[in-house]
Amino acid sequence: MTFTIMAEPLEVLACDSFTAAGAPDDIAAAVAHSLVLTNLLGHDSHGVLRVKQYISMIRRGMIQPAERPRIRKRFGATAMVTLGYGFGQIGARFAAELATEMAREHGIAAVSLGQTTHVGRLGEWTGMIAAQGLIAIGFAGGGFSHGFVAPYGGRERLFSTNPMSFAVPCGDEGTLLLDFATSGVAHGKVMLAQSIGAPVPQGMMLDKAGRPTTEAADLDAGGVLLPMGLHKGSGLSLMMELIPNLLAGDRPMSAPEFHFGNPALFMALLPEAFDEATDFAIQVEALKARVKAVKPAAGFDEVLVPGEPEARSYAERVNEGIPLPDQVWADLCALAEELGVCVPIAPPPQTPP
Amino acid sequence: MTFTIMAEPLEVLACDSFTAAGAPDDIAAAVAHSLVLTNLLGHDSHGVLRVKQYISMIRRGMIQPAERPRIRKRFGATAMVTLGYGFGQIGARFAAELATEMAREHGIAAVSLGQTTHVGRLGEWTGMIAAQGLIAIGFAGGGFSHGFVAPYGGRERLFSTNPMSFAVPCGDEGTLLLDFATSGVAHGKVMLAQSIGAPVPQGMMLDKAGRPTTEAADLDAGGVLLPMGLHKGSGLSLMMELIPNLLAGDRPMSAPEFHFGNPALFMALLPEAFDEATDFAIQVEALKARVKAVKPAAGFDEVLVPGEPEARSYAERVNEGIPLPDQVWADLCALAEELGVCVPIAPPPQTPP
Repeated sequence: MTFTIMAEPLEVLACDSFTAAGAPDDIAAAVAHSLVLTNLLGHDSHGVLRVKQYISMIRRGMIQPAERPRIRKRFGATAMVTLGYGFGQIGARFAAELATEMAREHGIAAVSLGQTTHVGRLGEWTGMIAAQGLIAIGFAGGGFSHGFVAPYGGRERLFSTNPMSFAVPCGDEGTLLLDFATSGVAHGKVMLAQSIGAPVPQGMMLDKAGRPTTEAADLDAGGVLLPMGLHKGSGLSLMMELIPNLLAGDRPMSAPEFHFGNPALFMALLPEAFDEATDFAIQVEALKARVKAVKPAAGFDEVLVPGEPEARSYAERVNEGIPLPDQVWADLCALAEELGVCVPIAPPPQTPP
Repeated sequence: MTFTIMAEPLEVLACDSFTAAGAPDDIAAAVAHSLVLTNLLGHDSHGVLRVKQYISMIRRGMIQPAERPRIRKRFGATAMVTLGYGFGQIGARFAAELATEMAREHGIAAVSLGQTTHVGRLGEWTGMIAAQGLIAIGFAGGGFSHGFVAPYGGRERLFSTNPMSFAVPCGDEGTLLLDFATSGVAHGKVMLAQSIGAPVPQGMMLDKAGRPTTEAADLDAGGVLLPMGLHKGSGLSLMMELIPNLLAGDRPMSAPEFHFGNPALFMALLPEAFDEATDFAIQVEALKARVKAVKPAAGFDEVLVPGEPEARSYAERVNEGIPLPDQVWADLCALAEELGVCVPIAPPPQTPP
């Protein structure tokens, strides 16, 4: 069962909860905005579900809610930003903005982000860069998906779900945004399948004995997630385990010396640096149209481009509200009560099951 | 049936053939070296098999064998190199060397390569950067795999096999190198399966009607290759279609205005720019050891890291010779005769079938 809530009051509730838990007003508002935006885009695993987790982390001293990012080192077209374990969203926004600014000067720039907690949806930050007319590449490694992923050919957990994201300007004002975990399927989707008794698609998991399985419960029983795309995705996962973490001054998540968190690297490239007369965004839009014109394969109604499912979810949810599982809503209300925060909305309308 | 030939005489034969076809000595030697190295590493589809193709392209005016790369534009930490449709290997080496040099100065650099023919094995160039202690990322799009790849959900050909490569320094002198086509399987492997009547693995192809197939002959009959890793690899393929081509001053391969060739982009990152005290290569080696220690899944004997199959092939072939299909050897000999080049070796020993 779900309750449907409009974005605005949900954002107020999340913001007030973070403020009550010790975050400065501007930080609380920015994190709440990022979480609700992610719900609007349909990625509920990275949405307000996280309010409870983040506040629990504040209480345990794992998130320092008032910390702000600072540049630890600059060299040429690179910078290393450190966050002191503040909210990852605040650090990621800062790093992405810095990469954009530096790429305008140098044609390309890379900014690493260390001592960071969960950066949220990686695509929010690459998308921000692309919205400024630049090409964005984002990598993140780290400890928020608990290393459930086995390398290709293996049956033991080693890698995190280590996401990567690409975003490019598209048309007059849009972006084309790719954002994915290098595991075949996200941990949250396996949990969801388990809760409703559905199978996990083939090729995504092994059981404890290292045999292919579609039974979601096999993951908790000692199974593993597989990388996307066999050995190719396994190699990408390995690179995501190394590059952002080491350039952010940390260790790979799988190393015993790994500190904690979600190190990230943002690269920005200015198309005009290479070719002054480039019509990059127009060419992206034209390619998007060619992809959309491809006849669908058996079992598909249409060909989607990256970002299209998110845009559809956004259009629907911004008008009709965000459906939250009962438990997520109950957790938010219980937390508000604990923190002395007013739930600023009437009990939401109940949607039919 | 195959003939087995040692690397050195094979390289002399390829070099002499290119020289006779109009390439300056140094260019002929470099291209021959790259092709034979690729055979040694086990990627025969990118090896001396290409001598016949390249010489045919010289004769048709598609490769300008004496052309050399030049920097068309520099801006900050970026450069755009143009090759005038010389041998792609010559341009890619130049672009990778320039990216290395510029990244030492700026911490990161990106160099695009346009008006280029086939750059060969993308990993040769990213590996060169990593061998200098830098992180390398290489993208290539283009027209040498004829756009056999459908976007995810589609049944029509649109993308090329658009490869990407990552390479990082590993240990004292080594590299860890990832290099893959964003299609699930290379076109050459489907051709090989067809020639020996073997099935193509599941999930790699659709037939003309857009239905999954494992029948290699379905590709020639109007089928398509699928991207690696479902929608994720399809998104990567789309980005590889855009980023290198547009930054190199060309169009996506799928655009009607695409000129011809194999545009590429090389990025290099200097780990010390981010963290002076970094032990990047040592951490890579430690992660490699953790991957190797993972217990194998059902059906696997061991877990391989990227580059390991290539290193094994190299160790074997450098000592025991390169097994070439009869037809490839016959083509090389026929070409040598046409060009008046001496075949500098006795008829090779025949290996048992």
